[in-house]
Amino acid sequence: MSQSDLAIAHELERTLALLERADAIASSTALDELIQQMLALLIEIAEAEAGTLYLVEDESVVLSAVQGDEASCALIGARRPRTAGLLNDTFAAGRPLWVEHLAADARWDSSLGELQNVELRSVLSLPLLLQGQAVGAIQLFNPVHHEARLLQLLGNRMASELEKARLLERAKEREARLSALIEIIGHIGSTLDRTQLLEVIMHNARRLLGTEASSLFLLDPESGDLVLHVSSGPLHEKIAAMRVPKGQGIAGYVTETGETVLVKDVSQDSRHYAQADQQSGFATRSILAVPLSTRTISLGSEREHWREHNIGCIEALNKIEGTFDDDDVLLLQTLARQAATVLEVAKLYADVNELFLDVIQALTAAIDAKDPYTEGHSQRVAEFAVAIAQQLNCSPDFIHHLRIGAILHDVGKIGVSDQVLKKPGYLTEEEFAEMRLHPVIGQTILGHIRTLQEELPVIIEHHERLDGSGYPEGLQGQAISLGGRITAVADAFDAITSDRPYRAGLPVEEAFRRLRAGAGTEFDSSCVEALWKAYSSGLVRTQKERAALRQTDQQPTSELSNAGAVSSA
Amino acid sequence: MSQSDLAIAHELERTLALLERADAIASSTALDELIQQMLALLIEIAEAEAGTLYLVEDESVVLSAVQGDEASCALIGARRPRTAGLLNDTFAAGRPLWVEHLAADARWDSSLGELQNVELRSVLSLPLLLQGQAVGAIQLFNPVHHEARLLQLLGNRMASELEKARLLERAKEREARLSALIEIIGHIGSTLDRTQLLEVIMHNARRLLGTEASSLFLLDPESGDLVLHVSSGPLHEKIAAMRVPKGQGIAGYVTETGETVLVKDVSQDSRHYAQADQQSGFATRSILAVPLSTRTISLGSEREHWREHNIGCIEALNKIEGTFDDDDVLLLQTLARQAATVLEVAKLYADVNELFLDVIQALTAAIDAKDPYTEGHSQRVAEFAVAIAQQLNCSPDFIHHLRIGAILHDVGKIGVSDQVLKKPGYLTEEEFAEMRLHPVIGQTILGHIRTLQEELPVIIEHHERLDGSGYPEGLQGQAISLGGRITAVADAFDAITSDRPYRAGLPVEEAFRRLRAGAGTEFDSSCVEALWKAYSSGLVRTQKERAALRQTDQQPTSELSNAGAVSSA
Repeated sequence: MSQSDLAIAHELERTLALLERADAIASSTALDELIQQMLALLIEIAEAEAGTLYLVEDESVVLSAVQGDEASCALIGARRPRTAGLLNDTFAAGRPLWVEHLAADARWDSSLGELQNVELRSVLSLPLLLQGQAVGAIQLFNPVHHEARLLQLLGNRMASELEKARLLERAKEREARLSALIEIIGHIGSTLDRTQLLEVIMHNARRLLGTEASSLFLLDPESGDLVLHVSSGPLHEKIAAMRVPKGQGIAGYVTETGETVLVKDVSQDSRHYAQADQQSGFATRSILAVPLSTRTISLGSEREHWREHNIGCIEALNKIEGTFDDDDVLLLQTLARQAATVLEVAKLYADVNELFLDVIQALTAAIDAKDPYTEGHSQRVAEFAVAIAQQLNCSPDFIHHLRIGAILHDVGKIGVSDQVLKKPGYLTEEEFAEMRLHPVIGQTILGHIRTLQEELPVIIEHHERLDGSGYPEGLQGQAISLGGRITAVADAFDAITSDRPYRAGLPVEEAFRRLRAGAGTEFDSSCVEALWKAYSSGLVRTQKERAALRQTDQQPTSELSNAGAVSSA
Repeated sequence: MSQSDLAIAHELERTLALLERADAIASSTALDELIQQMLALLIEIAEAEAGTLYLVEDESVVLSAVQGDEASCALIGARRPRTAGLLNDTFAAGRPLWVEHLAADARWDSSLGELQNVELRSVLSLPLLLQGQAVGAIQLFNPVHHEARLLQLLGNRMASELEKARLLERAKEREARLSALIEIIGHIGSTLDRTQLLEVIMHNARRLLGTEASSLFLLDPESGDLVLHVSSGPLHEKIAAMRVPKGQGIAGYVTETGETVLVKDVSQDSRHYAQADQQSGFATRSILAVPLSTRTISLGSEREHWREHNIGCIEALNKIEGTFDDDDVLLLQTLARQAATVLEVAKLYADVNELFLDVIQALTAAIDAKDPYTEGHSQRVAEFAVAIAQQLNCSPDFIHHLRIGAILHDVGKIGVSDQVLKKPGYLTEEEFAEMRLHPVIGQTILGHIRTLQEELPVIIEHHERLDGSGYPEGLQGQAISLGGRITAVADAFDAITSDRPYRAGLPVEEAFRRLRAGAGTEFDSSCVEALWKAYSSGLVRTQKERAALRQTDQQPTSELSNAGAVSSA
């Protein structure tokens, strides 16, 4: 083999070795690492003193790497328009440009020369081509070798690897968003803790959009102000009590119009409510704000009658890297939808519960309107019944329905005429026949309310007696539901111990004497003894004991608060 | 330059040209294309007669490409364990193996030789190395060149590109899933059409999991059967009426236990309900089934009291390519959560609406229980009031609340004593004073129900008169709400025209004579004339006209159905 044979064989050898190194570098999928190592390899191949790498982004060119001049690394990230000059010529040519005497080249703008500590004499300017399109450029300064073919090959390889790394980076970001949505969807299905759910959503809004803070504002229907409800970010506590006056700020605008608003620089937007920043000490630079909207239906109309209305907004504040993009808008809108669903479900549960409680109050009011003398009777009977059931170790679920049933046990008295209902003293047989209708009337009224079906046994059976002498059905023993047996004892206990316009309430001892006398025939003795245990432990009080307590002001209690959750609305 | 100089220079030139071609091939991100083109390039470089490409998948090796022998392409996809043999030796060596005489090599199992139409003499077996790990191999048969360095370089390059293409393919799949979730979340917030939402979810389940069909089953609470609710797939219509008996099938198992079940081969799973396939003609091979669970709260108890319970399941049937993986499980569970949220929200809206309608029925029943003689009065007044409001072009929203208010206008009569309420003839001043309390009592009762606040003006003002001589407030003219003025006319019209136990209803002409006589002093004349217009157009009928119609059986109408949506429950 000749000398030149050897030289060329060596060259081939060297080329393959370089390509193997390029492969090793390319196996990394980290964008930054890839850029740095590939630039270093190209500088080495060209034996250049320094090198720079630019990437095209939209209509700009961004300086993305500098090697050979540490001081100039501070310039990384600098952005300039794609106008004339050597760089632009490189993009346009789509092939390497060699400039031997930089100083003499008109296209070279030395003020743009990034490298301050290297004397720039010559440059090899390589476009990074991806399927024929320039996606960036590498400039190698003062190179010993400027045969460009291998360099261009590696440059293009780099363009391809960069593109894939970028796609993968973007894919990773979207994967994080997918995971977050999956997580939030899972949460929404597994808890009703509205605050916790909103915190998860707002945390993810901040994390996935890469912003300094995120806030969720809800409209205060009274004042029209927007009140900060949940936030994520450094000033979490400081801004906890924030309130934006009606119609003010970008939040106000978004909530009023239902539009999404993206403000890259709030100092340029007159809608920005600067006072919020003064209050919080948080310097807002950029905002992405999306509306929160939920629906309401008109109760009692056809299902399709619903209206969407804005109940607040979500803001992402200060994008840390870059600017908000379309993906960010879509994600924040999606998170807002999820937050709105959380709020809607919570409100629906609250609505149906509130309506239910209201109805019980209204029915109680209807009983009271009919017979004001017995006011408080229903609530006391409920309390006694619950106390008995607790002594008997009944399930919370059973007790829950018992409580409501007992509150409503006399609702049928609405249909009993006043001369019978309010008659002092004994009833004639005819009058008593009318009075005995009230459990059935109660069942007729409440039978319409499908959510009160489990309460019906208490309503219909609270005047049955163990020996079958009760009404309306004359049921015997265990044929009477436990709820009915318990309420019968509770009802009798209150009737005996309470004052009525025509007679004073009897002492507790007398009441228990009578209940025990009736145990086994009229009353279930285990219920009677359970009430005794509850009473003697101080767990329940008669009407007269309450009145006495109220007079001495020892306890500013209301009858309502004693009946537990049902009346707490 | 010597001849050999030229040869080597030519070799370098050729190498770079090949690398440029490899770059062009690598710029594709389509996995299949990449495999085919890279294999072709290697065959060309080696001047081989044929080539095969294998990829490692878990513990198997999959034949992924064949070139040079079309007949053998049918074998693509064949899978074999990573055991001994030349392929395995190649993986283990981590470097190219050259076998000059295949027939003499003990490692070569000719029965495994994929190529039937090429006489296989020699092979260059190249591992595809990704960061030192073999992820596949290429075998080049009968090559002219077997200097492996460039081939190995390109092989490794290929491994790296394959890996990235795979990652991108996977990323694309996840991106499709992200988009679908975003789309579904958007839908959930923007419509209450439960069926449409579930169809979107089930369509996406089928599309994203790549299955032949997907089905959503809901538990029928009566029978415990699972009823097909929504499905996506070829047999959509044929299986529309499918029903799986209680506890049967994988659907039954999943719904009962709340477990996710993945069955790769249903013929091996005794839980599979084969009758479903017989009914539908759909041959189920594999199933992924996840439970649907929603929550219920105990109404009237504290908010935290909620229970999760399974209401059905979602099945994905027959994965088309490959088998169900963890991503599929997570996605289907997430879609099930979304479907559950849709069902939960729909149920909540239905619940609150149902409860509302029930309450109105119950309160109407309570009025009827008090005074059965006026049965039907409330519904007729509501109908007359709505007819007047429609003639006056009131908004649908106003009419909605007017209808409900009018149905309940007399609810306060519950609190009026019977001797007053049912007294035939004129009332004494004292009795009339009690009667005049009913609007206020009505307000007291309904004041408890926050969702009935807009109905209150009708309740409280339906006995006010324009000249201020009405009760309870003695309001004048426009100070009386329009709802109150309308209901006053509707109420009077029904009172005049209806039969009562103590007198017959008067003719319509007389009713309008009286209403017009009172117009301007007692009644709002525009309301009176609006009623006349509605009546004379045949839009409303009096109690007597209805009774007459019912007797002649011309129209089997019920009073309830005339009052519109409110009473349609």
